[in-house]
Amino acid sequence: MFKRMDHVGVVVHDIDATLKTYCDQLGFKLLERVEIPEQKVVAAFLDGGNSTIELISPTDAESGTARFLANRGEGTHHVCYEVDDIQAALAMLRDQGVRLIDETPRQGVHGLVAFIHPKAANGLMIEVLQKAHK
Amino acid sequence: MFKRMDHVGVVVHDIDATLKTYCDQLGFKLLERVEIPEQKVVAAFLDGGNSTIELISPTDAESGTARFLANRGEGTHHVCYEVDDIQAALAMLRDQGVRLIDETPRQGVHGLVAFIHPKAANGLMIEVLQKAHK
Repeated sequence: MFKRMDHVGVVVHDIDATLKTYCDQLGFKLLERVEIPEQKVVAAFLDGGNSTIELISPTDAESGTARFLANRGEGTHHVCYEVDDIQAALAMLRDQGVRLIDETPRQGVHGLVAFIHPKAANGLMIEVLQKAHK
Repeated sequence: MFKRMDHVGVVVHDIDATLKTYCDQLGFKLLERVEIPEQKVVAAFLDGGNSTIELISPTDAESGTARFLANRGEGTHHVCYEVDDIQAALAMLRDQGVRLIDETPRQGVHGLVAFIHPKAANGLMIEVLQKAHK
């Protein structure tokens, strides 16, 4: 079902300070920096070879990402897997009794996305992505 | 410097119960299950397309993994990047002032490994790996 790991999402306080750390000190390359007003976040995708790192910072104290930061601090938020058909993937997961956050796909930066509940995968939050170019 | 993301490490309480969840419900395939007595853990690698998931469970209440579970609960522990030359990678990171956990590489399951301190990457713990077959 999961075709490839598209990215690992990391929630951080200050996206531009973090980009400086990741690019200047750790050697990542910035691919794209995007504001996502409907989610009240700014995101940046960094080249990591076969997969990317998505840095995510809240732009509003009321966002889910701001609550994550307040509760857990900076760190890994989710792992995103690409699937060919997100409706089929969600149906298969539902058939297996997997608890979903998003029962129906919604529009993400790079295509249709849905989150699986972290309790369904022992604390790992999995995002599934059907890329828009398909 | 980082060539490819080799795996994402996830710490869990019960590796066999988790394998059942990941394989039967989430559709991952088990590649390898290994006891690592010197680290007091058992690990299992699951196929995730271009990268793998490493599930890790403590086999001793005094292990670092057991302390992680007690403090943080189940969830993502680290992201592992493959490098061509781990000594060169650690030297480059040190030159950039990056805080390391392992100043010198040590033997891991699939080659020489070293961990970067999570404070150096905003809460993301990065492992670097030079594969043994190189």
